Amino acid sequence: MKKADTLFKNAIVLTMNKAMEQFEHGALVVSGDSIVAVGSEAEILAHYEAENVIDCGGKVLMPGLVNAHTHVPMTLLRGLADDLRLDVWLMGYMMPVEREFVTPEFVRLGTKLACAELIRSGVTSFADMYYFENDIAEVTAEAGMRALCGQSVMKFPTPDAASYEDALDYTRKFIERWKDHDLIVPAIAPHAPYTCTPEIIKACADLAVEYDVPIHIHLAETKFEVESMREAEGIPVIPYVKKHGLFKAKVLAAHCVYIDTGEIRTLADVNAGVAHNPSSNMKLASGVAPVQQMVDAGVKIGIGTDGPASNNDLDMFEEVRLAAFIAKGFSGDPTAVPAATALQMATRLGAEALHMGTLTGSLEPDKRADLILVDIDKPHNAPRFRRDPNNTYVQLVYAAKATDVTDVMINGKFVMRENALLTLDEKALMAEAQEYAEKIDAFLLEREQSILSKLVALGGSIEEESFEVQTKIKITDPVDFESALVATSTQGLEIVHKRHYREYDVYFSFDDPTQGRLRYREDEFVAENGDITGVRARLTLIGEANKEEFEKDVVLSRSRYLAPASNSLRFYREYFKPKGEQKIEKDRLRWLVKFQGTEFYINFDQFDKPDLGNFVEIKTRTWSRSDAKRKAEMASELLVALNLGNEENITEDYIEII
Amino acid sequence: MKKADTLFKNAIVLTMNKAMEQFEHGALVVSGDSIVAVGSEAEILAHYEAENVIDCGGKVLMPGLVNAHTHVPMTLLRGLADDLRLDVWLMGYMMPVEREFVTPEFVRLGTKLACAELIRSGVTSFADMYYFENDIAEVTAEAGMRALCGQSVMKFPTPDAASYEDALDYTRKFIERWKDHDLIVPAIAPHAPYTCTPEIIKACADLAVEYDVPIHIHLAETKFEVESMREAEGIPVIPYVKKHGLFKAKVLAAHCVYIDTGEIRTLADVNAGVAHNPSSNMKLASGVAPVQQMVDAGVKIGIGTDGPASNNDLDMFEEVRLAAFIAKGFSGDPTAVPAATALQMATRLGAEALHMGTLTGSLEPDKRADLILVDIDKPHNAPRFRRDPNNTYVQLVYAAKATDVTDVMINGKFVMRENALLTLDEKALMAEAQEYAEKIDAFLLEREQSILSKLVALGGSIEEESFEVQTKIKITDPVDFESALVATSTQGLEIVHKRHYREYDVYFSFDDPTQGRLRYREDEFVAENGDITGVRARLTLIGEANKEEFEKDVVLSRSRYLAPASNSLRFYREYFKPKGEQKIEKDRLRWLVKFQGTEFYINFDQFDKPDLGNFVEIKTRTWSRSDAKRKAEMASELLVALNLGNEENITEDYIEII
Repeated sequence: MKKADTLFKNAIVLTMNKAMEQFEHGALVVSGDSIVAVGSEAEILAHYEAENVIDCGGKVLMPGLVNAHTHVPMTLLRGLADDLRLDVWLMGYMMPVEREFVTPEFVRLGTKLACAELIRSGVTSFADMYYFENDIAEVTAEAGMRALCGQSVMKFPTPDAASYEDALDYTRKFIERWKDHDLIVPAIAPHAPYTCTPEIIKACADLAVEYDVPIHIHLAETKFEVESMREAEGIPVIPYVKKHGLFKAKVLAAHCVYIDTGEIRTLADVNAGVAHNPSSNMKLASGVAPVQQMVDAGVKIGIGTDGPASNNDLDMFEEVRLAAFIAKGFSGDPTAVPAATALQMATRLGAEALHMGTLTGSLEPDKRADLILVDIDKPHNAPRFRRDPNNTYVQLVYAAKATDVTDVMINGKFVMRENALLTLDEKALMAEAQEYAEKIDAFLLEREQSILSKLVALGGSIEEESFEVQTKIKITDPVDFESALVATSTQGLEIVHKRHYREYDVYFSFDDPTQGRLRYREDEFVAENGDITGVRARLTLIGEANKEEFEKDVVLSRSRYLAPASNSLRFYREYFKPKGEQKIEKDRLRWLVKFQGTEFYINFDQFDKPDLGNFVEIKTRTWSRSDAKRKAEMASELLVALNLGNEENITEDYIEII
Repeated sequence: MKKADTLFKNAIVLTMNKAMEQFEHGALVVSGDSIVAVGSEAEILAHYEAENVIDCGGKVLMPGLVNAHTHVPMTLLRGLADDLRLDVWLMGYMMPVEREFVTPEFVRLGTKLACAELIRSGVTSFADMYYFENDIAEVTAEAGMRALCGQSVMKFPTPDAASYEDALDYTRKFIERWKDHDLIVPAIAPHAPYTCTPEIIKACADLAVEYDVPIHIHLAETKFEVESMREAEGIPVIPYVKKHGLFKAKVLAAHCVYIDTGEIRTLADVNAGVAHNPSSNMKLASGVAPVQQMVDAGVKIGIGTDGPASNNDLDMFEEVRLAAFIAKGFSGDPTAVPAATALQMATRLGAEALHMGTLTGSLEPDKRADLILVDIDKPHNAPRFRRDPNNTYVQLVYAAKATDVTDVMINGKFVMRENALLTLDEKALMAEAQEYAEKIDAFLLEREQSILSKLVALGGSIEEESFEVQTKIKITDPVDFESALVATSTQGLEIVHKRHYREYDVYFSFDDPTQGRLRYREDEFVAENGDITGVRARLTLIGEANKEEFEKDVVLSRSRYLAPASNSLRFYREYFKPKGEQKIEKDRLRWLVKFQGTEFYINFDQFDKPDLGNFVEIKTRTWSRSDAKRKAEMASELLVALNLGNEENITEDYIEII
């Protein structure tokens, strides 16, 4: 008899090895961190004895699940903001909150909470990508879990690196520290082609080759990403990263939703792993990856939950089922991604996708003892058919729940035994997490009370001069205003420059009028010959005004914040949630003039929508109240000089008179 | 102070009423079978006292979920056969097993097991459709659950009715018995337009109107159904059933996957309820119903699991999440079916879809006390944001699990308390269910060992004469065989009739050669002018032959079973799972002749695929061995009479020489 540490008996053993061997009355032997033998109970008991013999009571004994793509610390952002468009979710909520809250302490807590959830749901290995990955690795190892930890690198400043050079330095040290660890596989995570320059991709690939560690990256997640790539580079995403040398390294590519047959072949040829993320791809409406085609082409494809902020959990049982469901529902083929295939993706194929196939993913001698017990004797999973080997896979994929997992062993050590976590105090973790949630809620509530804070949260804005002198005259007779202006230029008025715009404005108004109005303006620059030579989009948050009326004009004292509008009107509408919305379209001739040595803007505005008619407007801004008064008097004189001194003037903003 | 039976306090109360009121520190009062009051804890405690005060410990208190479409007894068929095409699954597995096993005892056990699972997962009401619905209703009422029980009516014989008239008689008695019950709403379930005649639809609608009970029906589930309807009737499914008077009754329509904008409007106008079944529609690859459009049009739309044989569970938490997911994933719009909408569908809107909106579906005074407690203090659901009312819906829809339900009250009575079922013995039920599973496995194993049993299981076949005389001569010179034959008809040969076919054969072979070969043959009938005047498809299971060679021919003794092939070749391929497959296409002129008073078939076969050339074949069949020998001798003479007596003859089947 051979001696071993632990012997599991009386189990339905699913090895998930290449031959998909099952042992209806099976047993398995562990010594140290590894599996020594697996087979029928009779066979195993005839050859092995162990100090610790575990009667599995007819439960399923199978490899622990592999979560092939996630961002574990984001447990702390679970349920923060949902049912939003990707850009609103990401730029409106995730990024501002991450900028404010993500620290080593944050990622440690989020990772521990994630480990508790992952272990409870039968996951023994995961592939992560986030910031402060060194802390994530430490906490994961303490929890006794196996992980590929991908340190993020991108072109923007991140919570853990002011530049990508800093991120690469951090990553090198991170790899040095973890490269020989039992549980942690350090990896480099250039976030995505659209957040990295070609130089970053190349540098990451070189570093990965230097240390023989994997690359973890997002590829071809959305249609928009692929269309943008095609537009900018003339090729889709996979050839683009190939061109920049990514596949010299061992790559784990998350998503691959929008890839064609040629790209699938490339992924197979370069031995890349793929992580399919069904919940995330559904919830963010990204689409469905061609999973069956990738399986058929021999691509090593696993299943991931993605981060718990876009899922909103880390439940791999759900992901496996969903992978099987949506492959059928989208293709119209009910035989696509059958149960056995889905479960292979969550075990052996997933481990191969992480380039950890020799370590984990199946119950085979010499692999590490990463295994789980699943109780299938539950009302939601009864009765049990056993006519066909697929019956067991079907039970696990279509009816079993994460909560049916009772025991989890990783690297030969139990981390959950009879539903009790052995390495983590989940009650304490939940309490700490709640403190974060309350801080984040308070941060967002404060921000959401203020349109300005929401504007600033998008990435900053510039405050403009707070005093504004303005007046306007409605021009009823069709008149060649420009000739009149040029004629006036003999009377102490000098034209500095002239511009011609088409201006498309949308004004958002809010429940609380003290928030002011937010203007989204697109300016088209019109050349002398009528061509559009450029376009600019800007947001201006215009505060409520204090008015001081003068004879022919008004001095407004109000706050003005200006920000470039790099997102779409639709984005801002969903992000700012205005109560009301008004559109103004006009043609503007604008002159910067010097009148008696002082600068003024003179606008000649012809309205299309609404049809207000034509106006001459005089405007100037200053930081100084006394300067504003002086300019208000001069503006009256300027009207006289323009022969408009006797016309009725209007001191309201256009938005107030429509 | 008002007195009441039970007071729930310290709960996050989600009323799911029209105003979607929530009480963060909420309470609810029950007296008898009904809700008396709901509101903030302070408010409720100021006005009510109860014998039984339940501290909910900060759990979510919400309406019990409504499973809007299922077939509860099919728990006993859960995991029986999966990842198959709808027709193979239905006609190859479900229907044969149902024909063999479905009895009152079967449905009672299956229903009890389902009730255990439904209660555990927070469902308080469900809409059923099956056979022996009276037994289902009895068992459901005993378990303390609320249900709409739809007795099936269809044009075929069913396990509980030899004809649809019998089914209607049964249904009338069933309604009479249950029409005033506290928990059971009897309903009529004409299965689907394609399984009912227009007379059945009309009769069911009339009966429903007579008793004011709902109709439960499958409508527009698959593309094939809608296309067939358009082809046969020129209109899609909703107008078709409207034309036949269905909507005079209160209708609950399951699926509605393939409906257009006009049909959505019709469903809203006629106040029909719809049951959306996301898992089933995915797993069977039916497609995705236009849920957001139905919600927008004001259709009362609920969520169902469908039967546990096509899901494979009754987990409404999963269904709600999936409804929210696939609406986004398929439309590309991440704001479609947000969490609050999905949860409304599973509660108030679902109850309205069942025409039970006054009874259940929300926590409002005077509605029945159908409610659940959900523990959201779990690692997979931490932390909790509460900035926005949607945060709570999001937690329940995207992260909560069915197993988080701890307590269930239906009609004022607890059926689960602190995770313990009070009305059902689930261990005993699982053991009984297992006995059924083993019987069904044995039945199918026996059947699957025999191609013949599988053929018979599809609906019967005819055994043909077991002795066959055959010989064939290869005609190498192009020859006008027909003229030769007609010329011969002076020498004691009389032509009885002539046929002309194009024959397309596919031969399936199996691992076990003693199973014989299965031939799928399509015959096109060719008229004198070359037109195709008809098509026929048949299956022939041809057993292994004992051969007895004669001078110029052979007597084969073998079994032959003939069955009409009403399904597609693809169906048979997936159902019979042949090891090999061979195709033969030929043109056949076939004469029935009398030669010296005995009937023979003479075939002139010209092969297209494979290119074998041309053959004259003589064939006849008989039940008698001695008759066969006699005919073998005559066949040799016939060859001589046809001037083919000196040619080399072939005694093999075509399939053996290709």
